[in-house]
Amino acid sequence: MNAHIITVGDEILIGQTMNTNAAYIGMQLTDIHVNVVKTSVIGDIEKDIIDEFRRCFELNDIVIVTGGLGPTHDDLTRGCVVKFFNTTLVTDEEVLDDIKAIFKRRGWELTPVNEDQANVPKIAEIIRNTLGTAPGYWIEKDNKFFVVMPGVPYEMKNMMEKFVIPRLKTIIGTPARIQKRMVLQTTGIAESILFEKLGNLDEILSGAKLAFLPSPFGVKLRITVEAPDETEASNMLLEIEQKIRGKAGRFVFTKGEESIEEVVARLLKERGYTISVAESCTGGHITNLLTNISGSSVYLERGIISYSNAAKVELLKVNEDTISEYGAVSQEVAIQMAKGIRSISGTDIGLAVTGIMGPTGAVQGKPIGLVYIGICDGNFCTSKKYLFGEDRLLNKQRTAQAALELVRRMLLGIPFDD
Amino acid sequence: MNAHIITVGDEILIGQTMNTNAAYIGMQLTDIHVNVVKTSVIGDIEKDIIDEFRRCFELNDIVIVTGGLGPTHDDLTRGCVVKFFNTTLVTDEEVLDDIKAIFKRRGWELTPVNEDQANVPKIAEIIRNTLGTAPGYWIEKDNKFFVVMPGVPYEMKNMMEKFVIPRLKTIIGTPARIQKRMVLQTTGIAESILFEKLGNLDEILSGAKLAFLPSPFGVKLRITVEAPDETEASNMLLEIEQKIRGKAGRFVFTKGEESIEEVVARLLKERGYTISVAESCTGGHITNLLTNISGSSVYLERGIISYSNAAKVELLKVNEDTISEYGAVSQEVAIQMAKGIRSISGTDIGLAVTGIMGPTGAVQGKPIGLVYIGICDGNFCTSKKYLFGEDRLLNKQRTAQAALELVRRMLLGIPFDD
Repeated sequence: MNAHIITVGDEILIGQTMNTNAAYIGMQLTDIHVNVVKTSVIGDIEKDIIDEFRRCFELNDIVIVTGGLGPTHDDLTRGCVVKFFNTTLVTDEEVLDDIKAIFKRRGWELTPVNEDQANVPKIAEIIRNTLGTAPGYWIEKDNKFFVVMPGVPYEMKNMMEKFVIPRLKTIIGTPARIQKRMVLQTTGIAESILFEKLGNLDEILSGAKLAFLPSPFGVKLRITVEAPDETEASNMLLEIEQKIRGKAGRFVFTKGEESIEEVVARLLKERGYTISVAESCTGGHITNLLTNISGSSVYLERGIISYSNAAKVELLKVNEDTISEYGAVSQEVAIQMAKGIRSISGTDIGLAVTGIMGPTGAVQGKPIGLVYIGICDGNFCTSKKYLFGEDRLLNKQRTAQAALELVRRMLLGIPFDD
Repeated sequence: MNAHIITVGDEILIGQTMNTNAAYIGMQLTDIHVNVVKTSVIGDIEKDIIDEFRRCFELNDIVIVTGGLGPTHDDLTRGCVVKFFNTTLVTDEEVLDDIKAIFKRRGWELTPVNEDQANVPKIAEIIRNTLGTAPGYWIEKDNKFFVVMPGVPYEMKNMMEKFVIPRLKTIIGTPARIQKRMVLQTTGIAESILFEKLGNLDEILSGAKLAFLPSPFGVKLRITVEAPDETEASNMLLEIEQKIRGKAGRFVFTKGEESIEEVVARLLKERGYTISVAESCTGGHITNLLTNISGSSVYLERGIISYSNAAKVELLKVNEDTISEYGAVSQEVAIQMAKGIRSISGTDIGLAVTGIMGPTGAVQGKPIGLVYIGICDGNFCTSKKYLFGEDRLLNKQRTAQAALELVRRMLLGIPFDD
């Protein structure tokens, strides 16, 4: 089955809002072996919306539309659905009850514009919305499927998970030949060097497809195989994985879509280790990543953002003379910060970063992008030097990625040198 | 002039990578009054790419393509450009020098796949890439413009800024009638309540367009006017802004695309105030946002992520008995944390958050989403209670947004009650 995803809204077109919906839907459909052929974004213009509905529904088995179902005057999608399917609006009492319930729970007064959202296209089966006021529509015509959901991401996701994906799975059944994908994520190695390191790709892949997806944080490898069933596809992927790991294994920090912080959190939990973090230049970013994971209080004891030198001395017991002699951005201070945070927190691991994120702050011999990461456990303490780029936010993110990669390597006993 | 933006790459289609490029290009084109009609994403399939080139170049004055220019086997865009324009590849010596220079700077060995990137379509004018190895292409045909850039965001942005936008500006000249947009960002108020508060929109807008863009963090209002020139358009927008502020002014935290942390940073700098932050449930997110802004060391002294109770007591001098009596997530602890961080840091403002982000951690009477934010200056100390939702990451982000909004209101003397 082929699918096209349509996102409606000027705010997406003119770049005010990121199109996270198309990405999410694309991933969900791919997971159930629907072939996403194309996605498009169109503005809040009735004619353009209806034209796009027509073209996409002609060419594909499934069309999924998000956006433009809100309660205000600039939401046109419902009207376009009515015109395109030549249907009318009817009041759905169940939807009206849902809307009333939401307003009651939030303690808000019900407004007429919200009440109007209970009027829905007659041709559609309703996808209930428990998180917001706009219902979704499921429409079947000529053995094809036209799905409409609100643009608010968590409302849409809830509908996808509870209704759209289960329904599509039933319709699709088990395909004759399946595609299966695997992702291996690397960090700390450039795309072209990884490419050379892997050598003869035909030998590794035996007909499978490999894509290199570089970002400032590393290179993702996406491998796609085709096979008659799940088991065979899994075996093919496993074999390819082993070959890739044989050539560049230490750079692979995970298989799948796990982030580096999820990997580190998992390893810390598995080993029952605790960690504390002292951040200067990253300003809380590392600890923020580590606490994005549910249950982080098991392994994270505390974090200190020692932005000023006073904070480094008072809270982390960094030696004032060391700062005077070597500067706050130095190997020596990184190590003292890591020792200090580990000692005051009583954790197994102490992690510390100090650096110059830019665009200001460079001094003689210390350019923007210079970072030292210190790490200590009960046995040893070390620091590593990095030179990132000019962009402040990217530098913060790359520093966090590199710091967490050091924790991963420490936990797994992988040498820090490349 | 009408434009279509094409993004090439399976990774975008299947949702592994967010399409930030289309958003950025959409915003840049809109700023110079180019009308972005549609954007689309297509996979790494030669026929699909060439078909999309054809359809989009027929219908529009400008087509901008990103992605698929990398050095590996899955990059098809260059070949598609050659076929679509019926041209050939020629080696560009300047590009070859650029590639060699990049490899030399990074201390990497030049590989044949990278050297091949100096072979470019003969019909194209080269857009030099100083940040990576793939050059961009500028092609003019039949008074239309076809632009191709690599998919790596910072390389593409650099080309847009240095080459594409200046070139398009020269071509466009001054239009007869211009569109101008303004954004007012609100927080702490629901879309439908804001809509009702604004009342008669025709009276406010006098023919201008208004879009409501809701997110979990607030509602953006985007106003679009059309006028013969800049000055008149600006005056129209100013009048509308004043009317909106008259109805819901205290919820408007900024005009334009400034984030709440940028607003707070700007206000702190303007007033010469310093701040320190004690975070429990947000785990460093607030301090991370505040340090995303260049020059943050002027106003941010330190942050403490007091994840454990021990950290709250040892570092922030929170009373152990208060924790036992009221629990770590309580108004009393939030206030003591704010007082504590302000006192040990010697800053003008102390900000503190404590809450239950989920999915675990709820106790009798304290559901997931419960947050207390404490804030102190030299004169007064207070705390505010919030009840957010079930999603951990959203809860962290909404807590940070609410905490920074309290700082904004404190700095501007706006009452905390709605």
